[in-house]
Amino acid sequence: MNSLPIGIFDSGVGGLTVMREVRRLLPAEHLVYLGDTARVPYGNKSHATVSRYAVEDAQFLIGKGVKMIVVACNTASAFAASALRGTFPGMPILEMIGPGARAAVAATRNRRIGVIATVGTIGSGAYESRIREVFAASGTAGEVEILTQACPLFVPLVEEGELNSEITRLVALKYLTGLREAGIDTLVLGCTHYPLLRTVIADLMGPEVTLVDSAESAALETAVLLRDRGMLNESAQAPGAESFHVTDAAPRFNQIARTFLGHDTEQLELVELGSAG
Amino acid sequence: MNSLPIGIFDSGVGGLTVMREVRRLLPAEHLVYLGDTARVPYGNKSHATVSRYAVEDAQFLIGKGVKMIVVACNTASAFAASALRGTFPGMPILEMIGPGARAAVAATRNRRIGVIATVGTIGSGAYESRIREVFAASGTAGEVEILTQACPLFVPLVEEGELNSEITRLVALKYLTGLREAGIDTLVLGCTHYPLLRTVIADLMGPEVTLVDSAESAALETAVLLRDRGMLNESAQAPGAESFHVTDAAPRFNQIARTFLGHDTEQLELVELGSAG
Repeated sequence: MNSLPIGIFDSGVGGLTVMREVRRLLPAEHLVYLGDTARVPYGNKSHATVSRYAVEDAQFLIGKGVKMIVVACNTASAFAASALRGTFPGMPILEMIGPGARAAVAATRNRRIGVIATVGTIGSGAYESRIREVFAASGTAGEVEILTQACPLFVPLVEEGELNSEITRLVALKYLTGLREAGIDTLVLGCTHYPLLRTVIADLMGPEVTLVDSAESAALETAVLLRDRGMLNESAQAPGAESFHVTDAAPRFNQIARTFLGHDTEQLELVELGSAG
Repeated sequence: MNSLPIGIFDSGVGGLTVMREVRRLLPAEHLVYLGDTARVPYGNKSHATVSRYAVEDAQFLIGKGVKMIVVACNTASAFAASALRGTFPGMPILEMIGPGARAAVAATRNRRIGVIATVGTIGSGAYESRIREVFAASGTAGEVEILTQACPLFVPLVEEGELNSEITRLVALKYLTGLREAGIDTLVLGCTHYPLLRTVIADLMGPEVTLVDSAESAALETAVLLRDRGMLNESAQAPGAESFHVTDAAPRFNQIARTFLGHDTEQLELVELGSAG
């Protein structure tokens, strides 16, 4: 059981930032990645559609014999976490919103938190309600202010490699000026693509704002959860294996994946979901 | 038969620019539109995946009893035209590449033509080979120069309403400078979203460059083809009906559609493709 792989899925390449962090913290674990590149992006699609896709994604990973599933996509986390837990009750499922919310509450001093994410994630209100829950559970009194901003152009900019260009700076200025002027001290990067824009975002927000990378937070909680349940692959001597599955074979995947993952995606396999059942 | 609707499909909202032109030229025709918004975009997906989606899209329209299909998506046209004709041999199918290529050859004086489109359309080489075929068929001698440029950020910019902003001008400068310096006199807008950036593109290319709108060209050929086959809905007194079908119910559709179509999309119906068979 402990030597079974961890399954990680995302709408496309973005979840590789999560995989990278999981690999860093848990070098012995076997990892199976699924990117639903035939239906990417999820960020501007509806609750019903994203839920259906996420359940199919998880079903595929379960077919690969995973011991745990990491929903490495904030939109799928926001829309489908409860559908996933309902459909697969025995399977440990870690999503992105909780870890990001907990890290933000831990980081803030002035209780003024910003969240940037896709249209879907922001529209769901998931981060906002989760951050409020975490504050409520912590029992600290006082006002909490949560400002959210959808940044729909960030994902295509990252995928086109515009990580630190004048174009990206202009787009970031458009999205982030309101958050900066509101005096937040913590900003959640609530989409797996956004850590790749960290330089531009940090420059704009200034040194007094802490950036919370939800990929880092989720990887940390993955390690905590597996350790807590005694499910770590501790007997292993060799580094864990990695396999990658995509639903569309566009040559872009490998090329973009290198930026996200930090190394090549060997063993890339094309699979079919949905119409194949 | 003549009173049957024309079917028009696209990966999402882009094909509404084609529908708008068809409506303008053929006010009496009934029109059925399908936008595959659950799987949008097609522009950066593979040949195999786009072909599969396009066949499912056409199958849906045939189920609606259409007399003709307009493939109002350049990427689907580039990748799937022959698969569609092979799968549905009796059905008149009009795609976007031929009309755009013919209009470009008619417009150029210096035989130096630029083509801008999605990564998929440019990668397919469809416009380039079609333009060369049209030149060859016209029997005119001499060199032909065709310069192509993928513009992957144009679609997200249009969908975010960045039609004439500083951000869009910077992106256009990045994509178009090479084409302008190469001295083209004709530029094919080989993606249904691009006509909405006409102002920015025209400013940058200058008045000596003719912009060919493949949506306009395709609508014109739709009218010619129906007239030629005696299939026009000429007996009608009232304006033709319109119905709209999407595979994802994201609220964005209506909002963006208004920009593309020029009026609201009444009778918007959610349908399922692929996993529904």
